[in-house]
Amino acid sequence: MTDPIFSYEHLKSFSLQIFKAIGCSDEHATLATDVLLRADLRGIDSHGLARLSGYVRLWEAGRINTTPNIRIVHETPSTAVVDGDSGLGLVVAPKAMEIAIDKARIAGTGWVAVKNSNHFGIAGYHSMMALQHDMIGMAMTNASPLVAPTFSVERLLGTNPICVAIPAQNQPAFVADFATTTAANGKLEILQRKNKEAPLGWIQKKNGEPSTNAHELKDGGALIPLGSDREHGSHKGYCLGAWVDIFSAVLSGANYGPWVPPFVSFLSPPADPVGNGIGHFLGAMRVDAFRPSDEFKAHMDNWITRFRAAQTIEGEERVLIPGDPERETSAERMKSGIPLNPKVVEDLKHLGNKFSLSF
Amino acid sequence: MTDPIFSYEHLKSFSLQIFKAIGCSDEHATLATDVLLRADLRGIDSHGLARLSGYVRLWEAGRINTTPNIRIVHETPSTAVVDGDSGLGLVVAPKAMEIAIDKARIAGTGWVAVKNSNHFGIAGYHSMMALQHDMIGMAMTNASPLVAPTFSVERLLGTNPICVAIPAQNQPAFVADFATTTAANGKLEILQRKNKEAPLGWIQKKNGEPSTNAHELKDGGALIPLGSDREHGSHKGYCLGAWVDIFSAVLSGANYGPWVPPFVSFLSPPADPVGNGIGHFLGAMRVDAFRPSDEFKAHMDNWITRFRAAQTIEGEERVLIPGDPERETSAERMKSGIPLNPKVVEDLKHLGNKFSLSF
Repeated sequence: MTDPIFSYEHLKSFSLQIFKAIGCSDEHATLATDVLLRADLRGIDSHGLARLSGYVRLWEAGRINTTPNIRIVHETPSTAVVDGDSGLGLVVAPKAMEIAIDKARIAGTGWVAVKNSNHFGIAGYHSMMALQHDMIGMAMTNASPLVAPTFSVERLLGTNPICVAIPAQNQPAFVADFATTTAANGKLEILQRKNKEAPLGWIQKKNGEPSTNAHELKDGGALIPLGSDREHGSHKGYCLGAWVDIFSAVLSGANYGPWVPPFVSFLSPPADPVGNGIGHFLGAMRVDAFRPSDEFKAHMDNWITRFRAAQTIEGEERVLIPGDPERETSAERMKSGIPLNPKVVEDLKHLGNKFSLSF
Repeated sequence: MTDPIFSYEHLKSFSLQIFKAIGCSDEHATLATDVLLRADLRGIDSHGLARLSGYVRLWEAGRINTTPNIRIVHETPSTAVVDGDSGLGLVVAPKAMEIAIDKARIAGTGWVAVKNSNHFGIAGYHSMMALQHDMIGMAMTNASPLVAPTFSVERLLGTNPICVAIPAQNQPAFVADFATTTAANGKLEILQRKNKEAPLGWIQKKNGEPSTNAHELKDGGALIPLGSDREHGSHKGYCLGAWVDIFSAVLSGANYGPWVPPFVSFLSPPADPVGNGIGHFLGAMRVDAFRPSDEFKAHMDNWITRFRAAQTIEGEERVLIPGDPERETSAERMKSGIPLNPKVVEDLKHLGNKFSLSF
């Protein structure tokens, strides 16, 4: 069975109306929609319209403010801390990224730590904002604790993604956007829907034993940091996730580790918060703060061309450049439409009914 | 058989004399020795005195300049590019890190890309320089190509390590220092010396098939990016290694990817360089460019305490904080001495003879 397919314009119009229905300004609704749909276009289906009803439920629970006063609470020439005022991360993060870009224009680089925010969609959206300014963009965020550090049975970290976007000249940009776990939660959700087993090394049971049950998280299990086990470097994945958590939340004054509030509205945030909301960390570096842009971008073209031309292992088609699969999916879906899982379609229909909007 | 043990002072004195014998100033010899011995103290034996004769051979081959003119060739308030003038990375990197720290004092953060350098020892040394200034330190470097990107049989990346050092209050600092491969080359060298097999997922054969032969690299095999295989996220390890390569070398104007010159003197650098020497990328962020230092460090203490207290998987002693093992080894070795592999001792004796110095 193939998933039903929807046009970009149809989904955009629906999402816009929903965000406006919960009180977003035109500008914020447009921005939030753009971020969400970019995920669907790029094939990161777990972070697109599939999450729209989740944001609405958080708003219903009083945990998202759709008219936030997003403001700088501290700054230096190359840094700022932004208070997201419980706004949608989909709006707060791009606003914070604009500040990072503005700082970079003058100081060479700009680094913005964000507190009091919510789930910001795909990290790639925010870091890629830097590209059009001939800047390198970086974005990271912490997230609800689903990941057990190496040797732990407790879930203390989120899937804490990192994205680095680097401009090139004639080649498409280098865009590395990845969860710091062996597999992103979205990958697990796909297996759950298909009732398939997960490979060993993705998840562990409540007691820390390896598991292939894709539903293990519901029974107190945990995702495993990139590396899968100690012998294969899971302590490095743990380091990466911890780094993202500290930059996003300890620097900004957001909640970190097990105190990060859950994305799902049916779970309450911890009663003893250590900060405000969830945290992000965004950065922009002007390429010509290091060397002339043209020179840099010509060498990026050379880097990309050389790696793409690498001799492959027999049976493998090609060596990919980070960002290749997402860019290709995006071009294809912009042309032919975006497939949505039937459960997501059902969910969006319900959501439409709630606001007397048809999906 | 246990390895012979040497006092820190003995090794320091020997290393100082060697660096002076090849033309380093007192200051540079002291700095290079401090960096090398920090690796031995912290238990990263592959990056300590075991490499001393390697640096000397590079100097003999005319590839290291022991009286370099290390200078800034471009800068903005928060960035600089440093030309290492073919100097020892052990000297160039700490000098560049000082520049990053100076920039951070004024601009909030400082980011220095370095070209025309050599192997810089452990990344941890340089990033930890920031801690005493209540700054977060970052260090990364590219290295000789030994790693095959996902799906590639060609070795296009080095083990390209990243270190992030973050200060705390009463707790020791968070120091995550790791190669972006499943296992560092040093881990493989240990197995080679002991004639043991490597776990599957560390290395691949010349044709890309998985291998457990710790000597595989000599036959054209390659190290594998963190993640071990595509299903377990090796494309993320490849992203990390690529990121380090681009920040270290494409930003600075050093050689990148397969053009990075080899550390061993018996292999010639590529005949068609795309830049100068190898590259590093160093960063410093003033903690109080984001929030008051005391507040930040109190929360870091809370982060560390909570993670250290995590309930462990049965049979595991404790959940580690990044930097714990190295700090504990360092304290132990400072007290009881530093064990050196007999082959390293032999190598150092030969080196001493060359300069009429006794080891």
